[in-house]
Amino acid sequence: MSLRETVSNPYSKWLDASGPESDVIISSRVRIARNLVGYPFPHLLGYDNADKILYAVQSAIESAAIKEIVGQLELSRMTELSPTERQILVEKHLISPDMLEQPEKRGVVLSADEVIDIMINEEDHLRIQCLLPGLQLKECWDLANKVDDGMEQILDFAFAEDMGYLTSCPTNVGTGLRASVMLHLPALVMTQQINSILTTLSKLGLTVRGLYGEGTQATGNLFQVSNQVTLGLTEDEIIDNLIMVAKQLVTQERTARLALYKEQQYPIEDRVWRAYGLLKYARSITSTDTMNLLSDMRLGVDLNIIPNIPRGLIMELIVMTRPAFLNKLKGEDLNPAQRDIFRATLIREKLNSLS
Amino acid sequence: MSLRETVSNPYSKWLDASGPESDVIISSRVRIARNLVGYPFPHLLGYDNADKILYAVQSAIESAAIKEIVGQLELSRMTELSPTERQILVEKHLISPDMLEQPEKRGVVLSADEVIDIMINEEDHLRIQCLLPGLQLKECWDLANKVDDGMEQILDFAFAEDMGYLTSCPTNVGTGLRASVMLHLPALVMTQQINSILTTLSKLGLTVRGLYGEGTQATGNLFQVSNQVTLGLTEDEIIDNLIMVAKQLVTQERTARLALYKEQQYPIEDRVWRAYGLLKYARSITSTDTMNLLSDMRLGVDLNIIPNIPRGLIMELIVMTRPAFLNKLKGEDLNPAQRDIFRATLIREKLNSLS
Repeated sequence: MSLRETVSNPYSKWLDASGPESDVIISSRVRIARNLVGYPFPHLLGYDNADKILYAVQSAIESAAIKEIVGQLELSRMTELSPTERQILVEKHLISPDMLEQPEKRGVVLSADEVIDIMINEEDHLRIQCLLPGLQLKECWDLANKVDDGMEQILDFAFAEDMGYLTSCPTNVGTGLRASVMLHLPALVMTQQINSILTTLSKLGLTVRGLYGEGTQATGNLFQVSNQVTLGLTEDEIIDNLIMVAKQLVTQERTARLALYKEQQYPIEDRVWRAYGLLKYARSITSTDTMNLLSDMRLGVDLNIIPNIPRGLIMELIVMTRPAFLNKLKGEDLNPAQRDIFRATLIREKLNSLS
Repeated sequence: MSLRETVSNPYSKWLDASGPESDVIISSRVRIARNLVGYPFPHLLGYDNADKILYAVQSAIESAAIKEIVGQLELSRMTELSPTERQILVEKHLISPDMLEQPEKRGVVLSADEVIDIMINEEDHLRIQCLLPGLQLKECWDLANKVDDGMEQILDFAFAEDMGYLTSCPTNVGTGLRASVMLHLPALVMTQQINSILTTLSKLGLTVRGLYGEGTQATGNLFQVSNQVTLGLTEDEIIDNLIMVAKQLVTQERTARLALYKEQQYPIEDRVWRAYGLLKYARSITSTDTMNLLSDMRLGVDLNIIPNIPRGLIMELIVMTRPAFLNKLKGEDLNPAQRDIFRATLIREKLNSLS
């Protein structure tokens, strides 16, 4: 499968809702920032140098070392992708929105299952990411480490004995490691425990964002929790801390779900089934409504209220109903009203194909 | 079928959604007020006299004249019915809420299909009502007239040459005739034409109310339009005027529906299907929500958006999901939260039995 085909597929390994604690934890992600010796950081990088870095990474992924360690990877320059395809990469959380600027300088490396994902010339020369479903931070870190080791056999990464890996932004200096988990926390939101939890997380040096954009924390009750500090802690400490926090959030969310369902059985069942009824029959639906209703439906699946709906389908629906994905599937640029109609059609077809 | 059994059945002829113009007109109703010579009006009526009137009506409906003209009728004193059964008669629009006061003095006569319906000792000694589905005001009037004629062979009605039939309330003096139609006007409400129409109707001497209670005009987009004046017009004039107005409302509503559907196909289809999805899957639903969603669903049936749903079922659901009916069906007095759950269960069962 070519990278363009990969992109057009709503499937990513991290979306398949498998993995440990997958009733609460959607996915785990580890990202490490690396820069090549002898080149300016990307914001000062000219076209020629950007090009050289893209070539260097291309040769690295073609090396026997990388192929042996992590298998086949494919690099695509942003200019090889259509604007819609680039936007889909953003919607699948494989690249940041910043990558859409100055596409001539930028590229992305992916494995076929999208577990390995390297942004080239974003804020750093390389941002090596690994994404897995469920709570698999250690596994992500191990894999990112392997990719890093393989790359380092070919590429010369900037490193200072006293500071660690050098990065464009000082907050990444040191390990250059950012780890995050994506959680589905509907019960903590419904019981209004979420605000005090968010405050606590922030005091622990963790950042919380929504699935799409920093301003949309509550949409779909999906929260991305990541470490903020990379200096002064070892990689293992960062990963272990986040795992501990994630496990605690899993426990809190599960407790809240059971208490909520016990105390308010009918309101919860009603909410869940209404969401299902609306998703199954609406003829026009916005992206925000979709995420919130899918969240309610997923809670119903997790509480065994609604049978026979695979969790993976719910995440697939969240991704495939984003604007660019809809344009790609439809093969044309839809206006917002057309998108709402096509989105509802897709959701209906997917849900009806189950029964 | 005994009157108590009749009462417990959600079926009434007027609810079966047949008859002319039944896409807009739910039902037609004609009521005539009659009082017996030699007795005070009901508000001044003692128990003994009330009892005598109940006996007089009983003997009238047992007379050969009545049986020949309108067939079998059954009288029940209010005291023979449980409070729940009395409330169901109100919910089926067969008696007014006033009939629940002083039940010892009051009774009701019904035909098995509930087309003929006589309230005894409400505001007048007899209020003879005929109810039919669709636009059948003339048919109602003819039938009410027959019942009146049959009754008059046995009973002596108070009549003054210069004023016509004497009634307890001066607004009914003259013909003693009140005629009404129940209309479903969702498109006139959605397009906000309804307010100017209501103003016009009021200028024409017509009264508009909701299906349940005077203050609930908009619930379910159901409007009852009736004549206000009974003096100075012949019965035929009253009936003809109301038929003319009803036909005009039918035309206006149909035009509004088609224009709305043409201009806003997807929003309308979305609204209709969402209503269907919610009714089909909700686990708890209020009476008001039910009426409004059933109204949306019925619009979908009338516009051929939703296939295979009989209109009669929609009216049946409106009636059978009223509080007293739910209590009767469940066999116990439910609190509001229990009623909302039972209501949702009933609606689900009915809709699922169709497919």
